[in-house]
Amino acid sequence: MSSISFIGLGGMTHAIASRAVAGGDSVELIGRDAAKAKGLAAELGAGATVGTFGAVPVGDIVVLAVPYTSAVPVVAQYGDALAGKVIIDISNTFDADATGVVTPEGTSGAQEIAKTAPAGAHVVKAFNTVFGHVLVQERPLDVLFAGDDAQAKADVSAFIASLGLRPLDVGGLEMARWLEGIGPLLMGLARNGAGTFDIALGVDLRG
Amino acid sequence: MSSISFIGLGGMTHAIASRAVAGGDSVELIGRDAAKAKGLAAELGAGATVGTFGAVPVGDIVVLAVPYTSAVPVVAQYGDALAGKVIIDISNTFDADATGVVTPEGTSGAQEIAKTAPAGAHVVKAFNTVFGHVLVQERPLDVLFAGDDAQAKADVSAFIASLGLRPLDVGGLEMARWLEGIGPLLMGLARNGAGTFDIALGVDLRG
Repeated sequence: MSSISFIGLGGMTHAIASRAVAGGDSVELIGRDAAKAKGLAAELGAGATVGTFGAVPVGDIVVLAVPYTSAVPVVAQYGDALAGKVIIDISNTFDADATGVVTPEGTSGAQEIAKTAPAGAHVVKAFNTVFGHVLVQERPLDVLFAGDDAQAKADVSAFIASLGLRPLDVGGLEMARWLEGIGPLLMGLARNGAGTFDIALGVDLRG
Repeated sequence: MSSISFIGLGGMTHAIASRAVAGGDSVELIGRDAAKAKGLAAELGAGATVGTFGAVPVGDIVVLAVPYTSAVPVVAQYGDALAGKVIIDISNTFDADATGVVTPEGTSGAQEIAKTAPAGAHVVKAFNTVFGHVLVQERPLDVLFAGDDAQAKADVSAFIASLGLRPLDVGGLEMARWLEGIGPLLMGLARNGAGTFDIALGVDLRG
Protein backbone atom coordinates (compact mmCIF):
# COMPACT_ATOMS: atom_id res chain seq x y z
CA MET A 1 0.00 0.00 0.00
CA SER A 2 1.26 3.45 -0.90
CA SER A 3 0.53 6.71 0.89
CA ILE A 4 -0.13 9.31 -1.80
CA SER A 5 -0.81 13.03 -1.71
CA PHE A 6 -2.14 14.79 -4.78
CA ILE A 7 -1.42 18.48 -5.30
CA GLY A 8 -4.01 19.66 -7.81
CA LEU A 9 -7.64 18.68 -8.20
CA GLY A 10 -8.02 18.29 -11.97
CA GLY A 11 -8.84 15.40 -14.24
CA MET A 12 -5.55 13.57 -13.78
CA THR A 13 -5.90 13.63 -9.99
CA HIS A 14 -9.44 12.33 -10.35
CA ALA A 15 -8.30 9.53 -12.67
CA ILE A 16 -5.20 8.45 -10.71
CA ALA A 17 -6.75 8.92 -7.24
CA SER A 18 -9.79 6.84 -8.22
CA ARG A 19 -7.49 3.96 -9.19
CA ALA A 20 -5.41 4.54 -6.04
CA VAL A 21 -8.45 4.24 -3.78
CA ALA A 22 -9.53 1.11 -5.64
CA GLY A 23 -5.98 -0.22 -5.24
CA GLY A 24 -6.03 0.25 -1.47
CA ASP A 25 -3.65 3.19 -1.38
CA SER A 26 -4.03 5.95 1.20
CA VAL A 27 -5.02 9.17 -0.59
CA GLU A 28 -4.71 12.82 0.44
CA LEU A 29 -6.13 15.56 -1.80
CA ILE A 30 -4.61 19.03 -1.77
CA GLY A 31 -5.70 22.14 -3.66
CA ARG A 32 -6.12 25.86 -3.22
CA ASP A 33 -9.89 25.27 -3.36
CA ALA A 34 -10.58 23.43 -0.10
CA ALA A 35 -14.27 23.01 -0.92
CA LYS A 36 -13.40 21.33 -4.21
CA ALA A 37 -10.91 19.07 -2.40
CA LYS A 38 -13.60 18.07 0.13
CA GLY A 39 -16.04 17.34 -2.67
CA LEU A 40 -13.55 15.11 -4.49
CA ALA A 41 -12.63 13.34 -1.22
CA ALA A 42 -16.30 12.63 -0.59
CA GLU A 43 -16.69 11.31 -4.11
CA LEU A 44 -13.65 9.04 -3.76
CA GLY A 45 -14.60 7.84 -0.26
CA ALA A 46 -12.43 5.09 1.28
CA GLY A 47 -11.14 7.56 3.83
CA ALA A 48 -9.64 9.93 1.28
CA THR A 49 -8.48 12.96 3.26
CA VAL A 50 -8.04 16.64 2.48
CA GLY A 51 -4.75 18.43 3.12
CA THR A 52 -3.81 22.07 3.39
CA PHE A 53 -2.16 23.66 0.38
CA GLY A 54 1.45 24.53 1.21
CA ALA A 55 1.64 22.37 4.35
CA VAL A 56 3.73 19.18 4.55
CA PRO A 57 1.80 16.51 2.62
CA VAL A 58 0.93 13.28 4.46
CA GLY A 59 1.91 11.02 1.58
CA ASP A 60 5.38 9.59 1.07
CA ILE A 61 4.67 10.09 -2.63
CA VAL A 62 3.40 13.45 -3.85
CA VAL A 63 1.73 13.54 -7.24
CA LEU A 64 2.28 17.01 -8.62
CA ALA A 65 -0.89 17.23 -10.70
CA VAL A 66 -0.94 20.83 -11.86
CA PRO A 67 -0.29 22.22 -15.35
CA TYR A 68 3.42 22.47 -16.12
CA THR A 69 3.25 26.27 -16.13
CA SER A 70 2.25 26.05 -12.46
CA ALA A 71 4.42 23.09 -11.46
CA VAL A 72 7.73 24.85 -10.82
CA PRO A 73 6.10 27.77 -8.97
CA VAL A 74 4.12 25.36 -6.77
CA VAL A 75 7.24 23.36 -5.89
CA ALA A 76 9.06 26.62 -5.15
CA GLN A 77 6.18 27.77 -2.92
CA TYR A 78 6.18 24.42 -1.06
CA GLY A 79 9.94 24.59 -0.55
CA ASP A 80 11.10 22.45 2.37
CA ALA A 81 7.55 21.15 2.88
CA LEU A 82 8.46 18.65 0.14
CA ALA A 83 11.80 17.63 1.71
CA GLY A 84 12.29 13.87 1.61
CA LYS A 85 9.24 13.29 -0.58
CA VAL A 86 9.06 11.34 -3.81
CA ILE A 87 7.57 13.85 -6.25
CA ILE A 88 5.85 12.44 -9.33
CA ASP A 89 5.82 14.95 -12.17
CA ILE A 90 2.96 14.02 -14.50
CA SER A 91 3.02 17.21 -16.54
CA ASN A 92 2.98 17.59 -20.26
CA THR A 93 5.03 20.47 -21.57
CA PHE A 94 3.84 20.81 -25.13
CA ASP A 95 3.28 24.19 -26.70
CA ALA A 96 0.08 25.79 -28.00
CA ASP A 97 -0.14 23.68 -31.18
CA ALA A 98 1.21 20.57 -29.39
CA THR A 99 4.05 20.02 -31.85
CA GLY A 100 6.89 21.28 -29.66
CA VAL A 101 7.55 21.84 -25.97
CA VAL A 102 7.81 24.99 -23.89
CA THR A 103 10.86 23.88 -21.91
CA PRO A 104 14.32 25.12 -22.94
CA GLU A 105 16.33 22.79 -25.16
CA GLY A 106 18.61 20.44 -23.28
CA THR A 107 16.29 20.06 -20.32
CA SER A 108 12.75 18.90 -19.50
CA GLY A 109 9.86 19.81 -17.25
CA ALA A 110 10.87 17.09 -14.81
CA GLN A 111 14.47 18.31 -14.64
CA GLU A 112 13.31 21.91 -14.10
CA ILE A 113 11.07 20.71 -11.28
CA ALA A 114 13.98 18.68 -9.82
CA LYS A 115 16.16 21.82 -9.81
CA THR A 116 13.47 23.57 -7.75
CA ALA A 117 12.73 20.68 -5.35
CA PRO A 118 14.25 20.78 -1.85
CA ALA A 119 17.16 18.62 -0.65
CA GLY A 120 16.21 14.99 -0.15
CA ALA A 121 13.24 15.15 -2.52
CA HIS A 122 13.38 12.87 -5.56
CA VAL A 123 11.53 13.65 -8.78
CA VAL A 124 10.17 10.83 -10.94
CA LYS A 125 8.54 11.51 -14.31
CA ALA A 126 5.46 9.37 -14.90
CA PHE A 127 1.89 9.33 -16.27
CA ASN A 128 2.39 12.12 -18.83
CA THR A 129 2.21 9.50 -21.59
CA VAL A 130 -1.33 8.46 -20.58
CA PHE A 131 -4.37 10.63 -21.27
CA GLY A 132 -6.53 11.14 -18.17
CA HIS A 133 -9.72 10.15 -19.97
CA VAL A 134 -8.05 6.86 -20.93
CA LEU A 135 -6.80 6.23 -17.37
CA VAL A 136 -10.40 5.99 -16.19
CA GLN A 137 -11.24 3.34 -18.81
CA GLU A 138 -11.08 -0.41 -18.31
CA ARG A 139 -8.08 -1.24 -20.52
CA PRO A 140 -4.52 -2.42 -19.98
CA LEU A 141 -2.14 0.53 -19.81
CA ASP A 142 1.61 0.97 -19.64
CA VAL A 143 3.03 3.79 -17.56
CA LEU A 144 6.52 4.80 -18.58
CA PHE A 145 8.61 6.49 -15.92
CA ALA A 146 12.08 7.96 -15.47
CA GLY A 147 14.12 9.07 -12.48
CA ASP A 148 17.55 9.13 -10.92
CA ASP A 149 16.92 7.70 -7.44
CA ALA A 150 16.59 3.90 -7.32
CA GLN A 151 14.45 3.80 -4.15
CA ALA A 152 12.14 6.55 -5.38
CA LYS A 153 11.68 4.68 -8.64
CA ALA A 154 10.95 1.43 -6.78
CA ASP A 155 8.30 3.28 -4.74
CA VAL A 156 6.72 4.79 -7.84
CA SER A 157 6.81 1.47 -9.65
CA ALA A 158 4.95 -0.19 -6.75
CA PHE A 159 2.43 2.67 -6.74
CA ILE A 160 1.80 2.31 -10.48
CA ALA A 161 1.34 -1.45 -10.05
CA SER A 162 -1.16 -0.79 -7.22
CA LEU A 163 -3.26 1.09 -9.79
CA GLY A 164 -3.52 -2.01 -11.95
CA LEU A 165 -1.12 -0.51 -14.49
CA ARG A 166 2.21 -1.79 -15.80
CA PRO A 167 5.22 0.30 -14.72
CA LEU A 168 8.03 0.52 -17.26
CA ASP A 169 11.31 2.18 -16.28
CA VAL A 170 12.98 4.04 -19.16
CA GLY A 171 16.04 5.19 -17.23
CA GLY A 172 17.35 8.34 -15.59
CA LEU A 173 15.61 11.70 -15.37
CA GLU A 174 17.42 12.86 -18.51
CA MET A 175 15.00 10.56 -20.35
CA ALA A 176 12.11 12.80 -19.24
CA ARG A 177 12.86 14.94 -22.32
CA TRP A 178 11.77 12.04 -24.51
CA LEU A 179 8.86 11.00 -22.31
CA GLU A 180 7.62 14.58 -22.61
CA GLY A 181 8.01 14.22 -26.38
CA ILE A 182 5.37 11.48 -26.25
CA GLY A 183 2.87 14.23 -25.41
CA PRO A 184 3.17 15.93 -28.82
CA LEU A 185 3.34 12.51 -30.50
CA LEU A 186 0.08 11.33 -28.92
CA MET A 187 -1.61 14.62 -29.86
CA GLY A 188 -0.27 14.30 -33.41
CA LEU A 189 -1.37 10.68 -33.62
CA ALA A 190 -4.86 11.58 -32.41
CA ARG A 191 -5.18 14.33 -35.01
CA ASN A 192 -3.50 12.59 -37.93
CA GLY A 193 -2.99 8.85 -37.65
CA ALA A 194 -5.52 7.61 -35.15
CA GLY A 195 -8.37 10.01 -35.76
CA THR A 196 -9.33 9.76 -32.10
CA PHE A 197 -7.94 10.87 -28.76
CA ASP A 198 -9.05 7.54 -27.34
CA ILE A 199 -5.57 6.10 -27.73
CA ALA A 200 -2.87 4.68 -25.49
CA LEU A 201 0.76 3.87 -26.05
CA GLY A 202 1.73 0.31 -25.23
CA VAL A 203 4.89 -1.77 -25.21
CA ASP A 204 4.85 -5.30 -26.60
CA LEU A 205 7.38 -7.37 -24.64
CA ARG A 206 8.58 -10.76 -25.82
CA GLY A 207 11.37 -13.18 -25.09
CA MET B 1 2.43 -2.07 -55.41
CA SER B 2 5.26 0.28 -54.53
CA SER B 3 8.57 0.67 -56.34
CA ILE B 4 11.25 0.94 -53.67
CA SER B 5 14.98 1.56 -53.80
CA PHE B 6 17.09 0.93 -50.72
CA ILE B 7 20.34 2.85 -50.22
CA GLY B 8 22.33 0.85 -47.70
CA LEU B 9 22.65 -2.90 -47.25
CA GLY B 10 22.40 -3.35 -43.50
CA GLY B 11 19.97 -5.07 -41.19
CA MET B 12 17.13 -2.59 -41.68
CA THR B 13 17.30 -2.95 -45.45
CA HIS B 14 17.26 -6.72 -45.06
CA ALA B 15 14.26 -6.55 -42.73
CA ILE B 16 12.19 -4.03 -44.71
CA ALA B 17 13.14 -5.37 -48.16
CA SER B 18 12.20 -8.91 -47.14
CA ARG B 19 8.72 -7.72 -46.18
CA ALA B 20 8.55 -5.58 -49.35
CA VAL B 21 9.28 -8.58 -51.58
CA ALA B 22 6.70 -10.62 -49.68
CA GLY B 23 4.25 -7.73 -50.11
CA GLY B 24 4.71 -7.65 -53.86
CA ASP B 25 6.68 -4.42 -54.01
CA SER B 26 9.40 -3.88 -56.62
CA VAL B 27 12.76 -3.73 -54.83
CA GLU B 28 16.10 -2.21 -55.87
CA LEU B 29 19.17 -2.60 -53.66
CA ILE B 30 21.92 0.00 -53.74
CA GLY B 31 25.18 0.04 -51.85
CA ARG B 32 28.85 0.88 -52.31
CA ASP B 33 29.58 -2.86 -52.11
CA ALA B 34 28.06 -4.16 -55.36
CA ALA B 35 28.90 -7.76 -54.50
CA LYS B 36 27.04 -7.47 -51.21
CA ALA B 37 24.08 -5.93 -53.03
CA LYS B 38 24.03 -8.81 -55.53
CA GLY B 39 24.17 -11.32 -52.70
CA LEU B 40 21.25 -9.71 -50.88
CA ALA B 41 19.27 -9.48 -54.14
CA ALA B 42 19.82 -13.19 -54.74
CA GLU B 43 18.72 -13.95 -51.18
CA LEU B 44 15.55 -11.86 -51.57
CA GLY B 45 14.71 -13.22 -55.03
CA ALA B 46 11.41 -12.11 -56.60
CA GLY B 47 13.27 -10.07 -59.18
CA ALA B 48 15.01 -7.81 -56.66
CA THR B 49 17.47 -5.75 -58.67
CA VAL B 50 20.82 -4.09 -57.91
CA GLY B 51 21.37 -0.40 -58.59
CA THR B 52 24.49 1.72 -58.91
CA PHE B 53 25.44 3.84 -55.92
CA GLY B 54 25.03 7.51 -56.81
CA ALA B 55 22.92 6.93 -59.93
CA VAL B 56 19.23 7.82 -60.12
CA PRO B 57 17.36 5.14 -58.15
CA VAL B 58 14.62 3.21 -59.94
CA GLY B 59 12.15 3.40 -57.08
CA ASP B 60 9.66 6.20 -56.58
CA ILE B 61 10.37 5.74 -52.90
CA VAL B 62 13.97 5.68 -51.70
CA VAL B 63 14.63 4.17 -48.28
CA LEU B 64 17.73 5.88 -46.93
CA ALA B 65 19.01 2.99 -44.82
CA VAL B 66 22.41 4.17 -43.68
CA PRO B 67 23.53 5.29 -40.22
CA TYR B 68 22.51 8.87 -39.50
CA THR B 69 26.15 9.98 -39.52
CA SER B 70 26.26 8.92 -43.18
CA ALA B 71 22.73 9.96 -44.16
CA VAL B 72 23.29 13.67 -44.83
CA PRO B 73 26.58 13.11 -46.71
CA VAL B 74 24.96 10.40 -48.86
CA VAL B 75 22.02 12.66 -49.75
CA ALA B 76 24.47 15.46 -50.54
CA GLN B 77 26.51 13.10 -52.76
CA TYR B 78 23.35 11.95 -54.58
CA GLY B 79 22.26 15.55 -55.12
CA ASP B 80 19.83 15.88 -58.04
CA ALA B 81 19.81 12.11 -58.52
CA LEU B 82 17.15 12.15 -55.77
CA ALA B 83 15.06 14.94 -57.36
CA GLY B 84 11.36 14.13 -57.22
CA LYS B 85 11.85 11.09 -55.00
CA VAL B 86 10.08 10.31 -51.76
CA ILE B 87 12.95 9.77 -49.32
CA ILE B 88 12.21 7.71 -46.22
CA ASP B 89 14.61 8.56 -43.40
CA ILE B 90 14.69 5.57 -41.04
CA SER B 91 17.71 6.72 -39.04
CA ASN B 92 18.09 6.86 -35.32
CA THR B 93 20.11 9.77 -34.06
CA PHE B 94 20.85 8.79 -30.48
CA ASP B 95 24.22 9.41 -28.94
CA ALA B 96 26.83 6.96 -27.63
CA ASP B 97 24.93 6.06 -24.44
CA ALA B 98 21.55 6.27 -26.21
CA THR B 99 20.09 8.78 -23.76
CA GLY B 100 20.32 11.85 -25.99
CA VAL B 101 20.57 12.64 -29.68
CA VAL B 102 23.44 13.92 -31.80
CA THR B 103 21.36 16.41 -33.77
CA PRO B 104 21.37 20.08 -32.76
CA GLU B 105 18.51 21.20 -30.56
CA GLY B 106 15.52 22.58 -32.46
CA THR B 107 15.93 20.21 -35.38
CA SER B 108 16.01 16.49 -36.16
CA GLY B 109 17.83 14.07 -38.39
CA ALA B 110 14.93 14.06 -40.82
CA GLN B 111 14.87 17.86 -41.02
CA GLU B 112 18.64 17.98 -41.59
CA ILE B 113 18.25 15.42 -44.39
CA ALA B 114 15.37 17.46 -45.86
CA LYS B 115 17.59 20.57 -45.90
CA THR B 116 20.13 18.60 -47.96
CA ALA B 117 17.66 16.91 -50.32
CA PRO B 118 17.21 18.36 -53.84
CA ALA B 119 14.21 20.34 -55.05
CA GLY B 120 11.09 18.23 -55.50
CA ALA B 121 12.25 15.52 -53.13
CA HIS B 122 10.07 14.90 -50.07
CA VAL B 123 11.44 13.45 -46.83
CA VAL B 124 9.26 11.26 -44.64
CA LYS B 125 10.46 9.98 -41.26
CA ALA B 126 9.47 6.37 -40.63
CA PHE B 127 10.64 3.00 -39.23
CA ASN B 128 13.13 4.43 -36.70
CA THR B 129 10.73 3.41 -33.92
CA VAL B 130 10.94 -0.27 -34.89
CA PHE B 131 14.01 -2.41 -34.19
CA GLY B 132 15.20 -4.30 -37.28
CA HIS B 133 15.34 -7.62 -35.44
CA VAL B 134 11.69 -7.14 -34.48
CA LEU B 135 10.65 -6.23 -38.05
CA VAL B 136 11.63 -9.70 -39.18
CA GLN B 137 9.43 -11.35 -36.55
CA GLU B 138 5.82 -12.44 -37.00
CA ARG B 139 4.06 -9.91 -34.82
CA PRO B 140 1.76 -6.95 -35.38
CA LEU B 141 3.74 -3.72 -35.57
CA ASP B 142 2.89 -0.04 -35.78
CA VAL B 143 5.06 2.22 -37.91
CA LEU B 144 4.83 5.87 -36.92
CA PHE B 145 5.72 8.37 -39.61
CA ALA B 146 5.92 12.13 -40.10
CA GLY B 147 6.30 14.41 -43.11
CA ASP B 148 5.17 17.64 -44.70
CA ASP B 149 4.00 16.53 -48.17
CA ALA B 150 0.55 14.92 -48.25
CA GLN B 151 1.16 12.84 -51.40
CA ALA B 152 4.54 11.62 -50.19
CA LYS B 153 2.94 10.57 -46.88
CA ALA B 154 0.12 8.78 -48.72
CA ASP B 155 2.75 6.89 -50.76
CA VAL B 156 4.72 5.94 -47.65
CA SER B 157 1.55 4.92 -45.82
CA ALA B 158 0.61 2.57 -48.69
CA PHE B 159 4.16 1.18 -48.70
CA ILE B 160 4.05 0.50 -44.95
CA ALA B 161 0.66 -1.22 -45.35
CA SER B 162 2.10 -3.37 -48.15
CA LEU B 163 4.60 -4.68 -45.59
CA GLY B 164 1.77 -5.95 -43.40
CA LEU B 165 2.40 -3.17 -40.89
CA ARG B 166 0.08 -0.43 -39.61
CA PRO B 167 1.02 3.08 -40.72
CA LEU B 168 0.30 5.83 -38.20
CA ASP B 169 0.75 9.47 -39.24
CA VAL B 170 1.95 11.69 -36.38
CA GLY B 171 2.00 14.94 -38.35
CA GLY B 172 4.51 17.23 -40.01
CA LEU B 173 8.26 16.72 -40.25
CA GLU B 174 8.77 18.84 -37.13
CA MET B 175 7.42 15.79 -35.26
CA ALA B 176 10.50 13.82 -36.35
CA ARG B 177 12.27 15.28 -33.32
CA TRP B 178 9.93 13.30 -31.08
CA LEU B 179 9.91 10.18 -33.26
CA GLU B 180 13.69 10.22 -32.97
CA GLY B 181 13.25 10.51 -29.21
CA ILE B 182 11.56 7.12 -29.30
CA GLY B 183 14.99 5.66 -30.14
CA PRO B 184 16.50 6.55 -26.75
CA LEU B 185 13.23 5.58 -25.04
CA LEU B 186 13.22 2.09 -26.58
CA MET B 187 16.87 1.62 -25.68
CA GLY B 188 16.17 2.80 -22.14
CA LEU B 189 13.12 0.54 -21.88
CA ALA B 190 15.14 -2.44 -23.08
CA ARG B 191 17.86 -1.80 -20.50
CA ASN B 192 15.68 -0.78 -17.57
CA GLY B 193 11.98 -1.57 -17.83
CA ALA B 194 11.63 -4.40 -20.29
CA GLY B 195 14.87 -6.25 -19.67
CA THR B 196 14.91 -7.29 -23.33
CA PHE B 197 15.49 -5.63 -26.69
CA ASP B 198 12.71 -7.80 -28.08
CA ILE B 199 10.18 -5.00 -27.69
CA ALA B 200 7.92 -2.97 -29.93
CA LEU B 201 5.92 0.19 -29.40
CA GLY B 202 2.24 -0.10 -30.18
CA VAL B 203 -0.77 2.18 -30.21
CA ASP B 204 -4.07 0.99 -28.78
CA LEU B 205 -6.89 2.66 -30.75
CA ARG B 206 -10.48 2.69 -29.55
CA GLY B 207 -13.67 4.51 -30.40
